[in-house]
This record gives sequence, structure tokens and C-alpha cells, in this order.
Amino acid sequence: MRVMVIGAGGMIGRRFASALAADPEPGLAALELLDTVAPEAPAGAAFPVEAGVLDLTDAAAVARRVAARPDVIVHLSAVVSGEAEADFDKGYAVNFDGTRALLEAIRGEADYRPRVIFASSIAVYGRPFPEPIPEDFHLTPLTSYGTQKAMCELLLADYTRRGLLDGIGLRLPTICIRPGAPNRAASGFFSGILREPLAGREAVLPVDESVRHWHASPRAAVGFLRHAMRLDLDRLGAARSLAMPGLSATVAEQIEALRRAAGERAVRLIRREPDPVIRQIVAGWATRLDASRALALGFTADPSFDAIIAAHVADELDGRIAS
Amino acid sequence: MRVMVIGAGGMIGRRFASALAADPEPGLAALELLDTVAPEAPAGAAFPVEAGVLDLTDAAAVARRVAARPDVIVHLSAVVSGEAEADFDKGYAVNFDGTRALLEAIRGEADYRPRVIFASSIAVYGRPFPEPIPEDFHLTPLTSYGTQKAMCELLLADYTRRGLLDGIGLRLPTICIRPGAPNRAASGFFSGILREPLAGREAVLPVDESVRHWHASPRAAVGFLRHAMRLDLDRLGAARSLAMPGLSATVAEQIEALRRAAGERAVRLIRREPDPVIRQIVAGWATRLDASRALALGFTADPSFDAIIAAHVADELDGRIAS
Repeated sequence: MRVMVIGAGGMIGRRFASALAADPEPGLAALELLDTVAPEAPAGAAFPVEAGVLDLTDAAAVARRVAARPDVIVHLSAVVSGEAEADFDKGYAVNFDGTRALLEAIRGEADYRPRVIFASSIAVYGRPFPEPIPEDFHLTPLTSYGTQKAMCELLLADYTRRGLLDGIGLRLPTICIRPGAPNRAASGFFSGILREPLAGREAVLPVDESVRHWHASPRAAVGFLRHAMRLDLDRLGAARSLAMPGLSATVAEQIEALRRAAGERAVRLIRREPDPVIRQIVAGWATRLDASRALALGFTADPSFDAIIAAHVADELDGRIAS
Repeated sequence: MRVMVIGAGGMIGRRFASALAADPEPGLAALELLDTVAPEAPAGAAFPVEAGVLDLTDAAAVARRVAARPDVIVHLSAVVSGEAEADFDKGYAVNFDGTRALLEAIRGEADYRPRVIFASSIAVYGRPFPEPIPEDFHLTPLTSYGTQKAMCELLLADYTRRGLLDGIGLRLPTICIRPGAPNRAASGFFSGILREPLAGREAVLPVDESVRHWHASPRAAVGFLRHAMRLDLDRLGAARSLAMPGLSATVAEQIEALRRAAGERAVRLIRREPDPVIRQIVAGWATRLDASRALALGFTADPSFDAIIAAHVADELDGRIAS
């Protein structure tokens, strides 16, 4: 099994590649890691790993990569929600046209039907919705990012139905705790208010503590992708995209978990700075989903925010909380 | 109010233009009728009517037309379901890329926010679904045509949300009785089994009589479009596309209405000729929808198949049924 990862330089992509290098899926023969800047290959893999450059907005380049006919294509590449909202053209060009170029390149290869694992998002949902959001609830995204993801889900289903590929779309919860530097995602503060204080730094909270959201740790997200590599996708039927199981928590509950892990001093590093733009974007997002379909298929969620924090401290901070 | 109709040469477009000519909406100042072949302008309009050629796959031509900045754009143009299924490229090029070119042309005009009335379809739904299909049910189309319509609905909502236009998507039931010659729509027989016998001709029935479907007459469809011209679209909220009210009936019920209108001799003109391809496409379609949202907004359905047949005989057959 040869696996190609697009968007491999991103946070999930890097962790996914490292996880495969440390503990390969049975039959994994080669890994190709692509991004707009060549990703770093993980050390110690027992199989060949190649890293390369791919700009999804260059359809010819996409076709050249696909011509190598990998068995599995993991597509994680996206312009994040805040940037897709600020830059209409770039958001559609990368998130929609780029994904379409990938599917078209696959269609262009005769007798080729790879598994395509597509990172969708809970941003496909928009208010008003019941809580939890049912599995068969309509998608009314309130951002261009969510619109682009929902359109790609439709393409993925149609290309699958026509036998051109074997697709699955994973509606990822917000990833928390996202390591590294802040990006332009409007959801960034959900991680920031934990990650920064755990490292002894100030963090900004732009929304109220009562805000509830749907989270998954980086470990859980990598678990979703690995499970999607193994799963018999015929079990999905025609509905090829589905909600991934998450952890529903309020900002206040996140802060309480931080207090338990790192004490009052860490909590005091969170600075309230209401931001009406972020508040409005976040207000349209899902807080809780019915993910029973994914659970029945074997996808698993994080047990608690305490566990999420503990995993972050282990994976990113060498076990040490700043004091 | 200047109105541009794209796809004005089609069956609904022609009837819509004639209806406006005979009984104009208040404030209607000009009508521009566009299609791949210049449509015939209706006679007797008390306002200027222009007819022209527009190929939706020619983005520059679309932009030139939009530069005239009509107040209302009615977009009816589409490659029908059977053809979009048979010709992957053409279906996506016209139904999706053509619609996107229209929305992009509108975005390209500064300080311009026309009303856009988009003809969507019940083909956006796909089995499995409950019956009736709830208003907030997810869209899992089982044809490329339905996929393209659902993707356009998402674009329409996003462009509306961004203030680039004021959009409404009407999920039209299958139009029955469709006058004129058969087209390549897989749903064509629903009309054929009534239209042809009423004119003394044989018709082919490719599915079982137990097949249930969701219908609207041409008169009802024109009524939907006219109502969408007048409606305050802010009442739609963010969910800009909605199910139009229809008449749910089985093929057997259609045939009974034919028997009441035209007698046993007409019914005997229906020849059973099972077609597994059409049967399979139709089996994925909606049979009954909850259209209470549209009903609450003032859209109205046909009362019965007897009324649909009577309207067809009046409008298309000069009141005469073949004997």
C-alpha cells in the first residue's frame, strides 16, 4: 500500500506521518508527503518516505502527482476558516478548486480507484440547529470555508458513486490542543487558552466562557485518519461524509481542566479580550454532534479535557508544565 | 424592475415569459430572454422584451450579459438529469460551472446586488430518507445532476451571505404534464403517460405503477417563480433553498386521473416497457416532501392530478382530448 498525503506539512499531517513511521499500518509500503513547502520526513520509518512540493491550485502538477497512482490519498490541505473568509478567491481556489483538481486527476487515470480520505470539518454545519446535531441534518454553512468543504463532500460522494474513487469525508471537530504557533483559524483561541498558559505564556480569550464547542485532540484526529485507512468504506453506503466523534465542552470547562492540570497561576494567564468578529463566526458553529454513525464504525473520541491536556503535555512539552 | 431569464427557451422559461407578458408583475420594466438558441419573445407584452443567445459555459459572455445589471435574474438553464449522468463533463460544465460563472459575474460588478432565483430540484435528495422528507434533511443526491444542483445551492447561500446577491433556490418537483416533445430527463415518462394518450398517441411506462413521485404542473412552477420575484427574501434566513410544494401521487393514481379525464381507450395507449436504468434512477428520488416552509411563505401546490390534466388540456390542447 502506497500512501500520498496532501497537506502533510500541516499539524495533523506531520503527526499522521510520524505516527505511521513509528507504528506502520500493515502493508504500508511507501509514504509520499506533499505540501506547498516540502514537509520534513519523519525519522526512523521502516519504509521509503518521499517529501515533495505540491500546489493544489496547479491542476497539471496535481495530475503529475496522481499519475504515480498511490493506493491511498489523504487530503488534509486547506486554507483555514479565517483566511478563507478574508480572501474569497484564495479560499475557493484552494479549498474547492484544488480538491476538485485532485478528484479530476484521479478520474483522468484509467482503471484506477484509490481510497481518498478527505478532511472535512464541522464548519459544514450552521445555525439554527438542534443540539446535538443529528446525523442526517442538512448542511447550512455560515462561512465560505464551510461552504467549500460541503461542496467537496458532494463531489467526493458523486465521484465515489461513479466508481472513480473510494471516498470518505471526515468532519473533523476543532483540533485542540493545536501545538505550535497560532494560525489564522477563527477557532485558534480554543487551543491558545490551554497551550499558552501550559507553556507559561499569556493567551487571549475573545469569546465568553459559556461558549460550547466540539473538540478532538491531535491524537484523536490521527486516530480518525488511521481508522479511515483500514475501514471497509462500502459500509458507508452513499453518504460518504460523516461527523467524527468529539468532546463537547464549554470554554469554562476547558479552563477548569487547565486549573486542575496547571493551577490558578496558569488560569490567570488568560486575558479576556472580546472580539466581535470571532465571536460572530464561532456563534454559528456546532457545539455538539450526534456521531453515533462514526462510533458504530469504530472511530473513537477523547475521553476528557484532562486527558487532552495530559496528552499535550506528554507529546509537546516533554511532560513539563511551566510553573 | 428589469428581469433577465437564463434558460428562457426551455419549457418553464417560455411559459414564465408568456405569463409575464399577459399579466406583468407590478413595476416590470423590461424582460431579457436568453438561451443557447435565442428564445421566441412572447407576443403582446406592454414592456420591452429582448431575446438573445447565451452559452453559460462562456464565462466572458456571461459577464457581458450581467454587466447590464438586471434587477432580477431567473436562472432556469440546465442539462437534464439523464444527460448529466451520461455526459459527466457537460453536466458539470453547464449545471455547476455555468451557474458559478453567473454568480462570479455578479460578484464582479461593484455595488450590485440582484435578486437571483435559481431553479434547483428535488434531485438534491437521495435515499435513504424518511417520507415525507423533512425540511432540514441532509442532501445526499444519487445523480450528478442532483450533486450539481446541491453544490449550486451552497454557492447561492454563500454569495447571498456575503451580500453579493439576494438568492433563493427553488427545489422544483418534477414538472408534469411537461408539454412538447420528450427530452432526455429520466423523469420524462411521468408526463408522457398522460400527455401522449391525451393526444391520442402511445406512451411508454418504464417503471411499476406503484412508483410514487412529487409533481408540480407547469402552471404551478410559473407560480413559484412569480412568487419568488415578489417575496421578501430576508424571510428565508441563511437557508436560501427550499422544497417547493408538490402533489404526491403514484403512477397508478396518475393513470386513474387519466381514466377519469379521457376514458379507458386513453389508458390502453400506455405500453409497459420496464427500463432498469430509468427504474434505478427513479428509485433514488423523493416521493413526498415536507414543504411547510414554502407553504408558510405563500408558495402554492396543485390541488389534484385531475386539475393538472384539466390545465394541460386547456393550455396545450385547446380544450380537446383526442378520442
